[in-house]
Amino acid sequence: MIRVYIAGPEVFLPNGFEQVERKRALCRAYGMEPSARQGDFLHYQGGDKFVFGTMIAKHNEELMLESDIIIANLTPFRGISADPGTVYEVGFMCALGRKAFGYTNTTRSYAERASADHYNGQVERAVSGRLVAVDGQMVEDHGMTDNLMIDGGIARSGGFILHGDAAPGVLFTDLTAYEACLKKITEHIGSSHRRCDTPQL
Amino acid sequence: MIRVYIAGPEVFLPNGFEQVERKRALCRAYGMEPSARQGDFLHYQGGDKFVFGTMIAKHNEELMLESDIIIANLTPFRGISADPGTVYEVGFMCALGRKAFGYTNTTRSYAERASADHYNGQVERAVSGRLVAVDGQMVEDHGMTDNLMIDGGIARSGGFILHGDAAPGVLFTDLTAYEACLKKITEHIGSSHRRCDTPQL
Repeated sequence: MIRVYIAGPEVFLPNGFEQVERKRALCRAYGMEPSARQGDFLHYQGGDKFVFGTMIAKHNEELMLESDIIIANLTPFRGISADPGTVYEVGFMCALGRKAFGYTNTTRSYAERASADHYNGQVERAVSGRLVAVDGQMVEDHGMTDNLMIDGGIARSGGFILHGDAAPGVLFTDLTAYEACLKKITEHIGSSHRRCDTPQL
Repeated sequence: MIRVYIAGPEVFLPNGFEQVERKRALCRAYGMEPSARQGDFLHYQGGDKFVFGTMIAKHNEELMLESDIIIANLTPFRGISADPGTVYEVGFMCALGRKAFGYTNTTRSYAERASADHYNGQVERAVSGRLVAVDGQMVEDHGMTDNLMIDGGIARSGGFILHGDAAPGVLFTDLTAYEACLKKITEHIGSSHRRCDTPQL
């Protein structure tokens, strides 16, 4: 059975635990197993915040090592890009040669979000064809979901990114795109006739 | 000789090429070799932006595979967190068991930036001890530079993060923290008596 590392910023939500459980249950409904392991950090009694954070990081890396694929929620989080913890995890799994899949609850590309949300529209198309912002910085414009390392890494791993279009109020709880992702993965893996842990690099 | 993958958002700067060259020259001045390789993408004649972006991603992953360590510029870029391409690369190198090092040109922690810059101070300490923002979301508060996967992964790889304090106008060009990082790495690697490519996981 395919073991799935479910990555995303849900842990920060007010109803984070319930949201994670909903995603885990849906994963099982599609015949895959969400990764799970007892974390040492749960028993940490020391008061060092940094050590505690590092224990959680270790736990998550161990979960990834025992997972076949990652499904990453790339919905922009506190800004124009995906949650950086999730992005780290996509890079980690791609380096291990595991298949990486993503979804995002917006249809807007990175270039659109950077231009509109970060630069308030103060972006111009230069003669070179590049998008250049008011501060002189180049805005990456590859028709991608986020930075090219993320989209490129996921594509090269053999995975894909699906785009949903959730209302602002349910941006982090709407699971339409996540479920579409699960459905497509089961079809994709069924038809590819190869193990998910085959190194792709 | 230690081969270094130099990661950061400099490529987006108006003077990106010169800034990258400055960083490469400093790396050599400290007795290490910046990774280099001719990229196929330089000769790409097709007009597909996505394919072009994926070729750059492939090129960068190949550079990482042949590098012993990564030095990542984690200075917040277009928001409260590090450039997501750089974060992907830190995760990628940590999964390969390479030592990861970082620097940032701000002394402010993730919790400070999220609270002040994203939530405009509308964050409270709950009875549980957690920092909770006005939207009910938990703000990660581990005394870390960024998301715990980044700080935790770097610490677990055997690396470290250094913090500079650059003026806003030179946030992406000041190389004081970068150079301190190079200096400390040469001391660190000299004293650790172990190969940089030893898997740490």
